[in-house]
Amino acid sequence: MALHPDRLLPVEDTTRAIARRLFAEVETLPIVSPHGHTEPAWYAQNERFPDPAALFVIPDHYIFRMLYSQGVPLEALGVPTADGTPVETDPRRIWRLFAEHYRLFRGTPSRLWFEHSLQATFGIEERLSPQTADAIYDRIADALQTDAMRPRALYERFNIEAIATTDSALDDLAHHDAVRASGWRGRVLPTYRPDAVVDPDRPGFAEALQRFFALTGEPQTYAGYLDGHRTRRAYFKARGATATDHGHPSARTANLSAAECELLFSKILAGTGSAAENELFRAQILTEMARMSLDDGLVMQIHAGSSRNHNSKLFERFGFDKGADIPQRTDYVGALRPMLDVVGNEAGLTIILFTLDETVYSRELAPLAGHYPALRLGPPWWFHDSPEGMMRFRENVTETAGFYNTVGFNDDTRAFLSIPARHDVARRVDCAFLAKLVADGRLDEDEAREVAIDLTYRVVKDAYKI
Amino acid sequence: MALHPDRLLPVEDTTRAIARRLFAEVETLPIVSPHGHTEPAWYAQNERFPDPAALFVIPDHYIFRMLYSQGVPLEALGVPTADGTPVETDPRRIWRLFAEHYRLFRGTPSRLWFEHSLQATFGIEERLSPQTADAIYDRIADALQTDAMRPRALYERFNIEAIATTDSALDDLAHHDAVRASGWRGRVLPTYRPDAVVDPDRPGFAEALQRFFALTGEPQTYAGYLDGHRTRRAYFKARGATATDHGHPSARTANLSAAECELLFSKILAGTGSAAENELFRAQILTEMARMSLDDGLVMQIHAGSSRNHNSKLFERFGFDKGADIPQRTDYVGALRPMLDVVGNEAGLTIILFTLDETVYSRELAPLAGHYPALRLGPPWWFHDSPEGMMRFRENVTETAGFYNTVGFNDDTRAFLSIPARHDVARRVDCAFLAKLVADGRLDEDEAREVAIDLTYRVVKDAYKI
Amino acid sequence: MALHPDRLLPVEDTTRAIARRLFAEVETLPIVSPHGHTEPAWYAQNERFPDPAALFVIPDHYIFRMLYSQGVPLEALGVPTADGTPVETDPRRIWRLFAEHYRLFRGTPSRLWFEHSLQATFGIEERLSPQTADAIYDRIADALQTDAMRPRALYERFNIEAIATTDSALDDLAHHDAVRASGWRGRVLPTYRPDAVVDPDRPGFAEALQRFFALTGEPQTYAGYLDGHRTRRAYFKARGATATDHGHPSARTANLSAAECELLFSKILAGTGSAAENELFRAQILTEMARMSLDDGLVMQIHAGSSRNHNSKLFERFGFDKGADIPQRTDYVGALRPMLDVVGNEAGLTIILFTLDETVYSRELAPLAGHYPALRLGPPWWFHDSPEGMMRFRENVTETAGFYNTVGFNDDTRAFLSIPARHDVARRVDCAFLAKLVADGRLDEDEAREVAIDLTYRVVKDAYKI
Repeated sequence: MALHPDRLLPVEDTTRAIARRLFAEVETLPIVSPHGHTEPAWYAQNERFPDPAALFVIPDHYIFRMLYSQGVPLEALGVPTADGTPVETDPRRIWRLFAEHYRLFRGTPSRLWFEHSLQATFGIEERLSPQTADAIYDRIADALQTDAMRPRALYERFNIEAIATTDSALDDLAHHDAVRASGWRGRVLPTYRPDAVVDPDRPGFAEALQRFFALTGEPQTYAGYLDGHRTRRAYFKARGATATDHGHPSARTANLSAAECELLFSKILAGTGSAAENELFRAQILTEMARMSLDDGLVMQIHAGSSRNHNSKLFERFGFDKGADIPQRTDYVGALRPMLDVVGNEAGLTIILFTLDETVYSRELAPLAGHYPALRLGPPWWFHDSPEGMMRFRENVTETAGFYNTVGFNDDTRAFLSIPARHDVARRVDCAFLAKLVADGRLDEDEAREVAIDLTYRVVKDAYKI
Repeated sequence: MALHPDRLLPVEDTTRAIARRLFAEVETLPIVSPHGHTEPAWYAQNERFPDPAALFVIPDHYIFRMLYSQGVPLEALGVPTADGTPVETDPRRIWRLFAEHYRLFRGTPSRLWFEHSLQATFGIEERLSPQTADAIYDRIADALQTDAMRPRALYERFNIEAIATTDSALDDLAHHDAVRASGWRGRVLPTYRPDAVVDPDRPGFAEALQRFFALTGEPQTYAGYLDGHRTRRAYFKARGATATDHGHPSARTANLSAAECELLFSKILAGTGSAAENELFRAQILTEMARMSLDDGLVMQIHAGSSRNHNSKLFERFGFDKGADIPQRTDYVGALRPMLDVVGNEAGLTIILFTLDETVYSRELAPLAGHYPALRLGPPWWFHDSPEGMMRFRENVTETAGFYNTVGFNDDTRAFLSIPARHDVARRVDCAFLAKLVADGRLDEDEAREVAIDLTYRVVKDAYKI
Repeated sequence: MALHPDRLLPVEDTTRAIARRLFAEVETLPIVSPHGHTEPAWYAQNERFPDPAALFVIPDHYIFRMLYSQGVPLEALGVPTADGTPVETDPRRIWRLFAEHYRLFRGTPSRLWFEHSLQATFGIEERLSPQTADAIYDRIADALQTDAMRPRALYERFNIEAIATTDSALDDLAHHDAVRASGWRGRVLPTYRPDAVVDPDRPGFAEALQRFFALTGEPQTYAGYLDGHRTRRAYFKARGATATDHGHPSARTANLSAAECELLFSKILAGTGSAAENELFRAQILTEMARMSLDDGLVMQIHAGSSRNHNSKLFERFGFDKGADIPQRTDYVGALRPMLDVVGNEAGLTIILFTLDETVYSRELAPLAGHYPALRLGPPWWFHDSPEGMMRFRENVTETAGFYNTVGFNDDTRAFLSIPARHDVARRVDCAFLAKLVADGRLDEDEAREVAIDLTYRVVKDAYKI
């Protein structure tokens, strides 16, 4: 299974040759990772990762989701339960179970990421199987004992220039402070993600809101609530944050009057909002956040369209983020209009849009981003963060929005070892797309080279102000 | 027009060579046809097909639909009317009309299926045209007189291992009994399709429901109605059925309380259900059918999203299935949730989902099937059962659902001669897709070979329990 | 940047060779342009185009839209304001601004069209950049002084056989009369576009309606209103019109009773229609227009699905058509049914459907056009009028609707110089698609050649009765 050096590049000779030249220009550029879910504690404490299962299986919802779809119980994979049901604790048994079902990942990006990690980080070129499972386990487990596998060493080895984490509005960012205080040269930037105090439908919202007011010392009014956000945003910004992030079930925005906002907030605060009012509150806060971004310069990211915790039984047993989030049809053209009426023409503001509904690429997102100065398009997200998904993104948005209304790649991962693999895939697919344009005469190669470098590095830093 | 031996395989040399090797592994595997619309009487009575028009034109809604779209009256094609309007009865004139308009089928799968049938079954390599129409007609007509063209001989010549028919819940399956009693080695399996007694919006529903109660001897209550289904499912299962099939305008499911069910059923029985109540009834029955499948082991197929009989005038004159069914936008993520709350986590249950809305492949179906143990994805259906459609299916679902949450190919046809042609197309497109993954380094060729065989044969038998 | 002679053709050798042969058959065929937005005054008055900015930047919403999305104010591009705000008037400064941002157009069709125009019309092969801006400006400006660059000379040089304009129902078509009276051999056909008197939501509707009644002398009743349309359609037809065109936010149609129509019209006339009633009025008029087309033979075009003037602030300052129109999700299968119930089975009628929602290609439009005799599919429209968009169109509609339910290409442009470039792109993409079918054995090359010529020339003239 040695990685094919031309993997994901076009197969036809002429186009492959172009793609190789383009890829050679970007292959070794530093990784700028402006959105992801690695743990700040890793960088602060620099502790070893415990074992292969804890590294590759237990926390990776792409992996255990696929295994679960074919009847493997999450308990047998060591996925921790919220209700106290005991789970498998022997990492080797978990690893073997993964190996037994490895064929399920054929044709998936998980497979690409995993094998890239095995080879690039551990030098393992054997394919995982029941026969090879133990030997591979041992090699990884041994390697994990070395200092070269500590988070900071990996950060450096991966040639990461900066990496953003995603952090609750209630977080004290102590780990970020610790990183900065340590003198280590790595750049780990927090991101302000206030969903816990913005989405009244989330379990624990009322309590989170009380902690938010306690933390910020603001009065429990709408004005106080907004000031609380301003305070927390400033706190994050002072610790290096350049962006906020908002995960909402829809992209709906609103622009209510002050009186309407006060009335709505009183219901939200009392926990008496209807489903429609909760949706309206989320919608209004997106517009408020956009206004604040205009003031404080934080880039705004909107991740819209996930139907969270679709599987009720699984959610009851395992809690959040256990693979039962399903994309849903998502409107942008009507939904964003109230917010765009307020800030859409602001060239100094950057709002980055993400979607799980690929039908909006050519129909809504590219036309919107190809017009409004404040809008940019985030890379393919989650289920679409894959070779075919990335290619569809470029094919569907470029002709209307161009390259420069996009913002480069997000690895968006909590799987640390997959970071170089994911960036590698993204760079290869972009080069493959550009090579296609060059080969059929739509773009000159010198321009394609500049675009490849821009998409890998320059537009990322520009868009995210890193 | 001799069939290109590499048809539908990639053209680029490297990829074509891989695809050829993969296709060589599956080209001659037996056909397992787990869902289709051939007539059980063919196998029971083994009578000759009457003439070329009756074989290729009159019953094939793909063919007469296209001709109708360009102004050819259905009457002139011999399509029987429901209102007694006389139609063309000379098969040679019908055939000539088809030949005159043959250019309309350029680029369509009908063309591929037709030419494959001509060549593989009749040895005809001339292209159909006004000039060749009569000669081709005569050759087919002559061949149809031979015993080699009787249904059982064709079944054997086509190397069919098993074929499922689709049968009304009210059917006595006498033809299936006759096949079994005959000692012939062919396997013809019935499929339980209860739409006529599930969908209150279908013409004739009230009468069908009365026949259903009469047939099963159950009381006219909701409990009796459900017991009636249990009785009929057992009857089908005893005759070899391994699956049920449900054709609904939407994928909506429900999980009502017992009292709600009784009340709803009383309205349905009285014929006083509103459109919304009729929809709710269909939704509830899907969940009931899933529960029964959990009990009796029958695989459940859901074919959702066709707006039936869109053309009112045509429907009045010609009745059902005359080409005026149009796909409509279809939601799965919200629609299936009530049913999935009940049975979604059951690894022992198989529910196979079909769609006419390709936008749900990557957005809804792959994420659902890539998570819920009970779900599998049926192959591209109807309008999408074509080279481009099949390739889009693989490109859109594989990265999230993999290959093993799909169930292989369905020919889904009432055109007997097209069965080998359709399986040939499906095998070629799967090999083309796999070859692409091998050529650009996403999969090793030994794995691709195993997947090709699995998709052609093993997962079909596993998923459908054949 | 010399144009690649094989641009947009497949890169793989075998397929490219086929595509080249096909393209050689259509490259020099006359241009038939049945739908577009060039100014009839150009042909009537035959005046010179003033300067490069007025030719390429100021009127081209594809160009200034992209520039605006990256922060370039429309005022700086010389786009005229509706509110009197002064704008840049120096064409050279506008041109330099365009040149500075030229990289934004990488990968867009605007780039292809622009460079084709530069090279084919002006012989310019240098890429636009800040360094080359002035030299290129001068060469264009000089050329524009020559008689060879007057509209009629360009029409002839572009090998245009006929071109349709799009004209308000209130237009007196004086320019068209002048062209005809001039004895010039060019064919410039008006198209009846009555949106201004059909859409009650358009600013100025009430006034337009009064002018419509004044112009036609009809009584202000629904019957009078319909007769007014009949009068105006006849007026257009007498001046060469072969088609009407209808730009609606949705594809909704209706078939109300006479009494309902009268009541609805009285509200529309009084300006008291609700949003829903305005939509219903538009819907009803589509059906009325279809009925009139059945009577007078004018081909009916429906351009549905644009959310017009999405950007309120921009609309206030600049007015219509300034790049702030965004596509929206559009239903056809339910929306068209009332109209199709009336006229769908009429083989003598041609209704051409356009969409901005690509998801309906395979799901709705191809199945509808592949069934109803009255329906045909227009080419990819607006945001989708691009190499990738055109390829998606063919890939998604051909298998169900074939080639002969489509109507060839529309350049749909107000940018006169881009007409040959746009037809060139369309011809190349069609040949690329056909070559793919030939190369993988789905079509014989002699048939592909016939289809290529049909799509370029014959079906256009047939569908539009030109």
